Parts: sequence; C-alpha cells; structure tokens
Amino acid sequence: MSDDHTTLTQLRSVVANFVAERDWNQFHAPKNLAMALAIEAAELMEHFQWISVEASRTLTDDPQSRAAVAEELADVVCYALAMANELQLDVSDAVRAKMIRNAEKYPAGEYRGRYGPKP
Amino acid sequence: MSDDHTTLTQLRSVVANFVAERDWNQFHAPKNLAMALAIEAAELMEHFQWISVEASRTLTDDPQSRAAVAEELADVVCYALAMANELQLDVSDAVRAKMIRNAEKYPAGEYRGRYGPKP
Amino acid sequence: MSDDHTTLTQLRSVVANFVAERDWNQFHAPKNLAMALAIEAAELMEHFQWISVEASRTLTDDPQSRAAVAEELADVVCYALAMANELQLDVSDAVRAKMIRNAEKYPAGEYRGRYGPKP
Amino acid sequence: MSDDHTTLTQLRSVVANFVAERDWNQFHAPKNLAMALAIEAAELMEHFQWISVEASRTLTDDPQSRAAVAEELADVVCYALAMANELQLDVSDAVRAKMIRNAEKYPAGEYRGRYGPKP
Repeated sequence: MSDDHTTLTQLRSVVANFVAERDWNQFHAPKNLAMALAIEAAELMEHFQWISVEASRTLTDDPQSRAAVAEELADVVCYALAMANELQLDVSDAVRAKMIRNAEKYPAGEYRGRYGPKP
Repeated sequence: MSDDHTTLTQLRSVVANFVAERDWNQFHAPKNLAMALAIEAAELMEHFQWISVEASRTLTDDPQSRAAVAEELADVVCYALAMANELQLDVSDAVRAKMIRNAEKYPAGEYRGRYGPKP
Repeated sequence: MSDDHTTLTQLRSVVANFVAERDWNQFHAPKNLAMALAIEAAELMEHFQWISVEASRTLTDDPQSRAAVAEELADVVCYALAMANELQLDVSDAVRAKMIRNAEKYPAGEYRGRYGPKP
Repeated sequence: MSDDHTTLTQLRSVVANFVAERDWNQFHAPKNLAMALAIEAAELMEHFQWISVEASRTLTDDPQSRAAVAEELADVVCYALAMANELQLDVSDAVRAKMIRNAEKYPAGEYRGRYGPKP
C-alpha cells in the first residue's frame, strides 16, 4: 500500500501544489472549504443512499462501484487536507487528540459492541 | 509537525484500533460511515455558517475556535480513514489519482485564478 | 391535521415574521441559508445514523424520538421556507414543476418498484 | 403565487401520489429519506459554494441560475414532505411549535440584529 510509506505531509503537499499552481488559495477560505467538504461527503453518500446497510458492505465488490467510491472518498480527503493546509493544522495531532478524548468518553469496556449516543 | 513523520497507515491504525477495541466494526458499514462523515462535515460547517467568507479566514486566530475547528476536522478525517479501513482502500493512491484527473480537467494555465464549474 | 388548512404562504409568513422581528434578514443570504439547511438535514440524519433501514421505519413509534425527529424536520422546512422567502420563489410551483420533470424522467410503468439511478 | 392557495396537504399529496404510482414507498424508509434530504441540500449548496455571501444575494438575478436554484430547493422540499408523509407528521404544527421554542430561546429584544450561537 502507498499509505505505508506516504506521510500526511507528503499527501498534503500533493493538494497544496495543485492549489498553488492554479492560484486557488483565494477561493480556499475555510467557509468555502467546509461547504466543499460537505458537498463531497454528500456525493459519497449518494452511492449508498437507497441500499440496505448490509448491501453497503458489498457494493464495492463491484470494481466500477469501488473505483467510484474511492474517487468520492479522495475528494473528501482532498478538501480535508486543503482545510488543514489553509489553517495550518496538524492532522495527525488532531486525530490522535480526538481519539484520546473519544477513549475517555467511550471506555472500551463499557461500550464494547454498543454504540454511544454520538460516537 | 507530527504530519511530517506520520504515515497514512499509522494514522489509519489509530482509528482501526479504537474501533476494534470496542467491536464497532459491526456498525461501520459504508452506508453508516458515509452518513457519519456527512454529519461531521456539517458540524465543521457550523463554525462558519453565519460569517463572511473573509471572516472565516481569521476565525481560527482565536485559540478556542481553532481548537474546536481542529476537533471537527479530526472527526471528518477519522471517519474518512474508517471508511478506507472498512473498504481497504489506499487513501494516498486515491488522492494522487484524483489529483491527476483534476489536473487534466483543470489545466493550470487555463484555470489559474479562476475556479472550475466544479472543482 | 393543521396541514389541511394551512397554505404555504401562511407557513412562510410564520418564518418571515420570526426573521423580521429579529432583523435577521441580514444573515439570511442564500449562501448562509443553504449551509443552514444542510446542517439541519445532517442533524435529522443523526437520528438514523447507526440503525438499519428497517429499524428507521419504527424509530418514531417512540414518542420522544418522534418529537425529536419532528423538530429536526421542522428546522429543515423553516430554512427551506426562509430560502424561498429570501429569493421570492414559489414553493408549490417549484415542487409541481419538479414532479412533472421527474415523471418524465421516471415513467411510472418503467420504474415501478425500482429506484432510478438518482431520483 | 400558487403558495397563496396551496395547502401543505395538497402539496404533500403531489409527492405522495408520485411515490405511490412508482411503488417507491419501499425505498422511503426514514434513514434513506434523511440521506436524500442531505444530498439535495448539498446540491443546493453547490450553487453558492465559491462565491461570497454578498454575491449569493444576487446570483438568482440570472434567470438560469434562478431556475436551477428553484429546482434544487424543490428537491429538498419534496424529500422533506416525503419524510412527513412517511412518518405522518404534521408539518405546519411542527414548524409553528419550533418557532415558538425559538422565540423563547431567542427573544426578539435581545437578539435583534445579532445571531444566536445556533439559530
């Protein structure tokens, strides 16, 4: 997997370069990027909209659906990284910090096999 | 920055371990994760909802707002990685492939300083 | 049902008066209202996020869940009407026009019991 | 305006008939409809994604943009009404009840010209 030897900074650079080459930073205000992220998340949802939860687990067995879902997920990640670039936020730190807070909120013993009110 | 020396696989493991320790894979069907992602993207939007595009550029100068936005962005990234884990998708590959397609769709020369109909 | 004898214009007025009394028109630019609408739609989704499609059909048998879902749906409708007010759009006309276009796109004979690629 | 003499029940019937003629009630579980609503809200947002808040106020001066925005808003309203149909919720009652709660939360005197933390 490329993910094994790609750092977050390297992936952020791919997005940053694309944006810089087009002088698109002027459009990448956080308000706009937050909308873009929500729009891409909705496009990802579209693939699973009318099927059952169980069917959603096997949708991507089909190579064409798999490619389409991967592309929508990439869009979401691109805008998330663009937001991190714009605000100079450390993604890894933010994710680790959130997982620590979540672990306190949802102790593994108590929540095993049972979802919290809001994960 | 932690992002300089954290690989995507390492960050994915943080999420995967959290989920595995709680036996939450049963809830992490793609349909549910896509909804979760969209919900977190909406929570990120909330911070920028009533302010101008320009004001959104400086909102995170305030440390408290910065921490809150970082936390919401972390939620988005967590669910994006959870989706990648669930579907065994390579995030780096997907992002690089998408940037190549976008570069063809929006040649830097033509789109410099001008946003495409749909980026 | 109140819906039997409430016109769209009457319901729009309820929202318009609330907004006017607070001088909130200044915040009700379409960009902001579209975000507000998406945020409320996400809050509605939250109630159904981790349950199966089938379970979502009976969630509102519980009076407390029913009240909560009704409140989130009201939020969505309020912002949709606020948008119609702001842009002076006729909601009934727009809905009827859309149903006519949809009927052409999804002829009843052909699509009975089968969902279109995008409804 | 059609809205002047169309009741909510009449508009709900337009949607209910369309759905019944295609036997689509089977797809219209609340979980799916909530996703559909969020997806349509995102499509509405797309029109305002990269423009300023001020520019969003005049976008629909252009007849083509106006028609497109009206169509997206119609989609949102259709799914909101489909949800109300599915759950047998009274939309007018829910909206009026919400406006009363909002009026308590945001007294006109205190909030005139100033948006609440969350409207």
